[in-house]
Amino acid sequence: MAEELHIDTGLDKADFTIIGAGNGGTAMAGYLAMRGYVVNLWNRSAKPIHDIETCGGIFLEGEIRGAAIPNKVTTDIGDAVAGASVIMVTVPAFGHETVARLMAPHLSDGQIVVLNPGRTGGALAFRATLWREGCTSSVTVAEANTFVYASRTVGAARSHVFGIKKTVSVAALPATRTIDVVRALRPAFPQFVPVENVMVTSLDNMGAVFHPVPALLNAARIDASVPFEHYTDGITPRVASVLEALDAERVSIAGALDVPVRSALDWLRETYGIRADNLYDAIQANKAYHGISAPTSLNCRYITEDVPYSLVPMLSLAQVAGVKTPAIRAAVNLASALTGEDYIAEGRNAASMGITGMAGSELTEHVVQEVWQG
Amino acid sequence: MAEELHIDTGLDKADFTIIGAGNGGTAMAGYLAMRGYVVNLWNRSAKPIHDIETCGGIFLEGEIRGAAIPNKVTTDIGDAVAGASVIMVTVPAFGHETVARLMAPHLSDGQIVVLNPGRTGGALAFRATLWREGCTSSVTVAEANTFVYASRTVGAARSHVFGIKKTVSVAALPATRTIDVVRALRPAFPQFVPVENVMVTSLDNMGAVFHPVPALLNAARIDASVPFEHYTDGITPRVASVLEALDAERVSIAGALDVPVRSALDWLRETYGIRADNLYDAIQANKAYHGISAPTSLNCRYITEDVPYSLVPMLSLAQVAGVKTPAIRAAVNLASALTGEDYIAEGRNAASMGITGMAGSELTEHVVQEVWQG
Repeated sequence: MAEELHIDTGLDKADFTIIGAGNGGTAMAGYLAMRGYVVNLWNRSAKPIHDIETCGGIFLEGEIRGAAIPNKVTTDIGDAVAGASVIMVTVPAFGHETVARLMAPHLSDGQIVVLNPGRTGGALAFRATLWREGCTSSVTVAEANTFVYASRTVGAARSHVFGIKKTVSVAALPATRTIDVVRALRPAFPQFVPVENVMVTSLDNMGAVFHPVPALLNAARIDASVPFEHYTDGITPRVASVLEALDAERVSIAGALDVPVRSALDWLRETYGIRADNLYDAIQANKAYHGISAPTSLNCRYITEDVPYSLVPMLSLAQVAGVKTPAIRAAVNLASALTGEDYIAEGRNAASMGITGMAGSELTEHVVQEVWQG
Repeated sequence: MAEELHIDTGLDKADFTIIGAGNGGTAMAGYLAMRGYVVNLWNRSAKPIHDIETCGGIFLEGEIRGAAIPNKVTTDIGDAVAGASVIMVTVPAFGHETVARLMAPHLSDGQIVVLNPGRTGGALAFRATLWREGCTSSVTVAEANTFVYASRTVGAARSHVFGIKKTVSVAALPATRTIDVVRALRPAFPQFVPVENVMVTSLDNMGAVFHPVPALLNAARIDASVPFEHYTDGITPRVASVLEALDAERVSIAGALDVPVRSALDWLRETYGIRADNLYDAIQANKAYHGISAPTSLNCRYITEDVPYSLVPMLSLAQVAGVKTPAIRAAVNLASALTGEDYIAEGRNAASMGITGMAGSELTEHVVQEVWQG
């Protein structure tokens, strides 16, 4: 369409389409283009697309340095996804359903969609939306457990990459297709490692543990924009004990669904090489957490993304698994009362994930075989 | 007994026995003795009793000034309650069950026990404990909705009375005896006004609204002993919206049990003459709240008393009333996770109050007629 903004080098095939030109997507598109891949980049709002057009490309600094011109940069999602082998969705979880709806009419057989990350139940919900929207193409939906970079947009068309993750877990829905997804990703991103199924990526969700509860237990000073550090100031010994309670519930859900996930403490030990006997000591010992400011408003992703798209789906999975989750439920209800949003109704619940009424064994069969189709 | 500490003027009859020589009890005993009533004062630990013995009486300052010698000052509860017309219990709610157990063998027909205050379900729980302990004397148990003074112990045998409440609601269990309780209290305390039944005093509990939730939503800085004011700093617009959600649940429980209670906003308007359209504005406009420091530890009565003895019994009453209480439950569960205490199991639950399995109509009949006896 004439009114769509775009860079277009004319190639109809793409190795990757990046959905979302935010902190993560811009860095990912820039990196892939620098590596010589044919990359399309889509964003819903025109501003970042226009910036890249105006600046003539994407500019990266920090751990990845350089400049590159994507194949297409556009606000037309049909144009963006047409002919792409792998579609990397990098928008926040609250954008997944919208992106799935917009993308549904344009997907074709054999395409792979990867949510970076899916938070909890992302692939299930994305898949369910595609079905609801009448998409019958044979598309593989997968989810990562985290974003491969720590990066921030620092100017027009310019991203700073602060860090690159060593490993990112990925699983496809159904799990039988995970190997195809890993094969498609590995040449560009050797960090991606396959895990059992999307229950692992969905429950190995550390943001769910580290983000909402400290925000809630510091809600007054966040609401008043009092500056403090999220981890070092915001997580005291007692706050950490709530994190441990919530984390134990997360691990119990996974156990009941027969998938292996690490405790948050073990994750900190393994990821950062920290020696500590409890979560509080481990968090305080983690230098990567020093200097991370707390949000200055309760309208922040620690609440608006992590509660409805990590904790709410965990409640639904807990129900399927038959696990009690008083700490997770308390966090969801308190966040709802704080913000006036009914997160259980509006978030990623059993209905959004298409798992209403499933027993644990049915859910396992579903994520491994995708027996359910609509 | 020879080892008991006591002042004893030798009178076997007393107008009042005060249970608890803390901030409130010492002031109450001093006031009554100054007014010429025969007053016994009991405390479980010997220190305040010893202080009064050593100093030769109780000394009051502030809104009530003077000195007086009680009839008996003792750690022997049998000696303290024998022959007393009215027994005023002034210990925190977490002491009610212990006091009831200690007192049970010594009570006699016609005595009145008043909990100052009962928090939620105090009279029900005290009554249930007396029955469990085999007390068959015809005793009337009543509860006030608040303590008549704002007072603090400021030295050995010395209390400062900062303020005197204009009205204190009181109800007896059964409600048919409330009028006798008011008649017994009024000569000394004209502030006491009768209300329908103990569901009113139990649910007209403003501490339940104003204390635990702000403490929870400021838990990190309380745990870190960061100084701030409980009301003015600790209650932001979003925190106030959680208070409103919890308060609406409290009012709904009362409505379902067919007893009238005011909203917290109306209570602030009526008690302090504040004009405001919402709870946040009303709290900030209340000069009586300015300068009140937040707790400096989570081991504080805003948590350890108000959660198990106000919010937990409200959950049980909500169940009887068939009212959903997500905000109250969230606060209880979060407080439990923060402190490691299982407040629902250990607090004043349906079993403690002796109302397990009751329907709303049965509870109403019970508080009005006391049909249940053990």
